[in-house]
Amino acid sequence: DIVAFVADYFAGQANEAPALFAGKKIMITAGPTREALDPVRYISNHSSGKMGYAIAEAARKMGAHVTLVSGPVNISAPPNVELISVTSAQEMHDAVMRDIQQQDIFIACAAVADFRLADIPTHKVKKKDGILTLSFEPNPDILQAVAAQARPPFTLGFAAETNDIEAYAKSKLERKKLNMIAANDVSLSGLGFNSDRNALTVITKNSKISLPATSKYRLAIELLKLLNSEYSASQNNKKSK
Amino acid sequence: DIVAFVADYFAGQANEAPALFAGKKIMITAGPTREALDPVRYISNHSSGKMGYAIAEAARKMGAHVTLVSGPVNISAPPNVELISVTSAQEMHDAVMRDIQQQDIFIACAAVADFRLADIPTHKVKKKDGILTLSFEPNPDILQAVAAQARPPFTLGFAAETNDIEAYAKSKLERKKLNMIAANDVSLSGLGFNSDRNALTVITKNSKISLPATSKYRLAIELLKLLNSEYSASQNNKKSK
Repeated sequence: DIVAFVADYFAGQANEAPALFAGKKIMITAGPTREALDPVRYISNHSSGKMGYAIAEAARKMGAHVTLVSGPVNISAPPNVELISVTSAQEMHDAVMRDIQQQDIFIACAAVADFRLADIPTHKVKKKDGILTLSFEPNPDILQAVAAQARPPFTLGFAAETNDIEAYAKSKLERKKLNMIAANDVSLSGLGFNSDRNALTVITKNSKISLPATSKYRLAIELLKLLNSEYSASQNNKKSK
Repeated sequence: DIVAFVADYFAGQANEAPALFAGKKIMITAGPTREALDPVRYISNHSSGKMGYAIAEAARKMGAHVTLVSGPVNISAPPNVELISVTSAQEMHDAVMRDIQQQDIFIACAAVADFRLADIPTHKVKKKDGILTLSFEPNPDILQAVAAQARPPFTLGFAAETNDIEAYAKSKLERKKLNMIAANDVSLSGLGFNSDRNALTVITKNSKISLPATSKYRLAIELLKLLNSEYSASQNNKKSK
């Protein structure tokens, strides 16, 4: 609405993107993936890519070299960002792993399909009567593969959930050995998937910070400021060891 | 490419849309449908809606009152067309059946999902290890429901296939009691799904006519001229009985 827009606009004036990431390489995944069922059908999800693209734009404005690995979306990549377009979860995994060792920070914002069809027919499947049963196998877990590196980048994950959001985010943070996780309630109307606005709860091992609803770009700036504090602390920790 | 564009442009100049459908009501379905797997995931297909929207635009220019029942697409409805937006096959079926008795002609261009998940969870399904098995039940068959009316409209169906296209189209024409069917080879690159160009083979009980590759709008005009000949013949037949 117009009030929120004006509030966001003046917040933006007071609070421009500081160059916190000069010289840093950040890889961001965004959008949905698509898993083929046959040459014409697929499984996907309601991710629009807007949150990941907003983070890419904000990270670039804050001085980072940004690689954006994106599933199929209907929005344009921000200027001066390296875009790698992929379709399936396997392709996204392969694109991420090819470049991950050069990255300082990895932000996994994509809504990656957990499963893919075990055997994809090469021809369009014809309609039949009765019940159809399909078997799906797990896709590679991109966050797990990144965390399994000898020297993993500083990693921020996302948890987009419709229920028990914080508990699930906290368990994902620990299970996948993330540095931070941003929990996203996708059941709230007007926020999240396909919306231009969002709200996040950012959780680390020792903290929980709520970022209230605003434009996805403003939210990305605030999220990256939080990330920078944690990232800097983790770097100082490494040096002092 | 530019040569094709110029050829299409001058073909368009010589051959404007004749007002063959003045006073007629035409209902057209277009685009994909989406079948929910849970609140965030769905099954869909690569239909862009461009062919159905081109037919709607051409039919309107040729004088028809057009109702366009459309699944989720990223294009705008042509001017002066009545748009009914739907998501699932069940919603498309219900929208079509609500108005079908007022229609003179029905053109089924949508890529309707044949199956839907038998039980749709109300919460996002969590990732698990191992194989996932899902059971699907058939969606209502819109063409069959239209043909089952006491006085069905003149009906044109589409068959989008990757193999054995004409044989399958011919069998669909007979099985579903259609007046005409337009067979569409979606395995050809640069034509069909998501493309601005297409080619069709139009099959009736006694004829087979190939409409060569051109813009979807030019193709729609040619297709509707063929449809009009068949439709007029069928009306004269009815009168003489």
